[in-house]
Amino acid sequence: MAALSLFLDVPLMREADRLLDAYQEDPSPDKVYLDHWDCQTETGKVWVCPTVRQILLQIANDPTLDHEYLPVLGFPEFTRAATELALGRESRAVIENRAGGVHTVGGTGAVRIGAEFLQRWYNRSSPSPIAVYIALPQWDSLRCIFQDAGFTEIRPYHYWDTVRLAVAIDDFLEVLESAPDCSIVLLHAPEETGLTPKQWEEVARVMRRKRLFPFFDVPAQGLASGDLDRDAWALRHFVAQGFELFCAQSFSKTFGLYNERVGNLIVVVRDNETLLGICSQLQKLVMGMWYTPANLGARVIATVLNNPALLSKWKQSLQTLAERIMLIREKLKEKLRILGTPGCWEHLTAQSGTRSFTGLLPSQVAFLERHKHIYLLGNGQVSVCSINSHNLDYVAQGINEA
Amino acid sequence: MAALSLFLDVPLMREADRLLDAYQEDPSPDKVYLDHWDCQTETGKVWVCPTVRQILLQIANDPTLDHEYLPVLGFPEFTRAATELALGRESRAVIENRAGGVHTVGGTGAVRIGAEFLQRWYNRSSPSPIAVYIALPQWDSLRCIFQDAGFTEIRPYHYWDTVRLAVAIDDFLEVLESAPDCSIVLLHAPEETGLTPKQWEEVARVMRRKRLFPFFDVPAQGLASGDLDRDAWALRHFVAQGFELFCAQSFSKTFGLYNERVGNLIVVVRDNETLLGICSQLQKLVMGMWYTPANLGARVIATVLNNPALLSKWKQSLQTLAERIMLIREKLKEKLRILGTPGCWEHLTAQSGTRSFTGLLPSQVAFLERHKHIYLLGNGQVSVCSINSHNLDYVAQGINEA
Repeated sequence: MAALSLFLDVPLMREADRLLDAYQEDPSPDKVYLDHWDCQTETGKVWVCPTVRQILLQIANDPTLDHEYLPVLGFPEFTRAATELALGRESRAVIENRAGGVHTVGGTGAVRIGAEFLQRWYNRSSPSPIAVYIALPQWDSLRCIFQDAGFTEIRPYHYWDTVRLAVAIDDFLEVLESAPDCSIVLLHAPEETGLTPKQWEEVARVMRRKRLFPFFDVPAQGLASGDLDRDAWALRHFVAQGFELFCAQSFSKTFGLYNERVGNLIVVVRDNETLLGICSQLQKLVMGMWYTPANLGARVIATVLNNPALLSKWKQSLQTLAERIMLIREKLKEKLRILGTPGCWEHLTAQSGTRSFTGLLPSQVAFLERHKHIYLLGNGQVSVCSINSHNLDYVAQGINEA
Repeated sequence: MAALSLFLDVPLMREADRLLDAYQEDPSPDKVYLDHWDCQTETGKVWVCPTVRQILLQIANDPTLDHEYLPVLGFPEFTRAATELALGRESRAVIENRAGGVHTVGGTGAVRIGAEFLQRWYNRSSPSPIAVYIALPQWDSLRCIFQDAGFTEIRPYHYWDTVRLAVAIDDFLEVLESAPDCSIVLLHAPEETGLTPKQWEEVARVMRRKRLFPFFDVPAQGLASGDLDRDAWALRHFVAQGFELFCAQSFSKTFGLYNERVGNLIVVVRDNETLLGICSQLQKLVMGMWYTPANLGARVIATVLNNPALLSKWKQSLQTLAERIMLIREKLKEKLRILGTPGCWEHLTAQSGTRSFTGLLPSQVAFLERHKHIYLLGNGQVSVCSINSHNLDYVAQGINEA
């Protein structure tokens, strides 16, 4: 046997998480980390939907449940309820049986399965590679998924104007106008973007004219406005306009069940026959990737979504969480006003959802990290949930000094 | 908006499960299905490891457990214990820190992640596509995984002589001898094949000379002989011989936890530095596929593997299950002897594990289905667990008539 490894040329990939590493190594007692991907509570713990523990106990105690494989496309009560939650029960696509869901391993799994399908079946007659557009804040996490699925033309776009500190709708529309016809565009809604319905209507108009394919990414329906229906406005508008589309839906944040990996790939197409063909091909792709999805998380979520009492409790807790996030935004803005921090901070409350652009420049972000032990992304984005009453004053003071 | 779907040309993929459909549609009260993929108990229920329910309750009751994401490579206590279970605690590869595990979504996920890695990093200087060899009984389930990962040269081999009703070791060795150097060979151990240690040594010798890459597929360690160490003999022999290899390990059958999707991709290489490089690349691939694996199943299994009392209980229950399978083989052979069925049925007990070649010809399989409502694969393979004291006589009688 040769003494050298067959894999000598495999380089060590450094993890991208420099920020977390730097935070963890910082010995300062004042240090604050503002880039959590999960929702933190006021005490800095991970938020979990209050009914979840009770349902987990019920499931563990239920002698009628077995541990047989789920169907390849997942837990049907879950996919149906999740799809209706996004599109609305009254959606024509639902009523006409031309919308369906595939239960996936988290939101990532939903994007990946969708990308694999599109890579094989979307616009196959195109002589040049299909372009995929991904918004900058999602660029790092989503680009590699489309790359791994075989797409070669992946392009970033931005919807946030770092000078005007507002949605950069004109730039966004310009990107869409100049995109090759039939490109795929990842639309991130409802979180963060804060596009108004009017702006979404404009986006839909351009996308229709250019025959661009909408692939929605819905990581936390309900956490932007606190209202599930309002947060689904953009998606439902596209469906109502007759678009065929995909939507990757995640329940990690809205149930606080990160580690059970529950996602749903929603497919909306012209008619039921097309839907059945697509689902049969998605089934083949799932069988080659994870065979069938994991059960527990989807069972918990299906229990909530299909029980009116639990559903109403969950909606209430989502609203409370969303209100807490909005309150933090208000408090931070107010604090900065009192400190007399230069600049206008209206954009803090004009945005919604768990993540927020602060408008801080890379040099200011570096100052915060070096001198105040406050860690956030170079583009100035923070997780609003990472701020609580214990660190709010310190963070505001830090921003003021920066 | 055009009235035609963008996906008009997506054909409906018929599910491959013709057999199950035919069985389910058969109105006969005598019907018997002999192709279950899960382990059935004497009463035709799915077998679950007896300690699982108790651990599930413990987990649901434990207030210290949160639901944060697992690390990308999974639950460390699980991967370490699972890897040691396969390789042995005393394995030099383990002691020298050059064996590692990646917690995956089931055995399928382990094969897929391994295949994706090999497609990118294995033998990159080869001018022609790398050939992958898959044994015929696993052909249907594994071929699509390697295809989806981008391999184009996938070839079947057989290790079962349908005339002599015995392991076709000469044919197997001949395939290995004639394979292009550095091909990848899927080795299915310990189940079914029933290769003796001497035959495995021969396989390893040829594979070393031809520099073939071993990718073990271990779906149910412990269920062939009832002894975990004995079932790991072939894998450990390859490791001891200094091979670098992959091994996809599944716990679905051995814990009866099919729907929580627990797998582990074991990587054994020359040294720790190479292992770290490979794991960092695997991490990148996982992030683009499911981001991090699901928690529950791995937590249950880690609890058992890391607790000596629970481990010994589990080993006992595995042994009982394996003995039951062996007893069914004995009983069926005896029954056929009493009925005076033509032919020798020694091969029923010469094989081990949950699945078995019966030696029935396609015409006999068709006869059983048409006239006796007994459903099995065209190659004569059955799931031994699907036979129990209620249907044993009927099945034996059917085989006798066929």
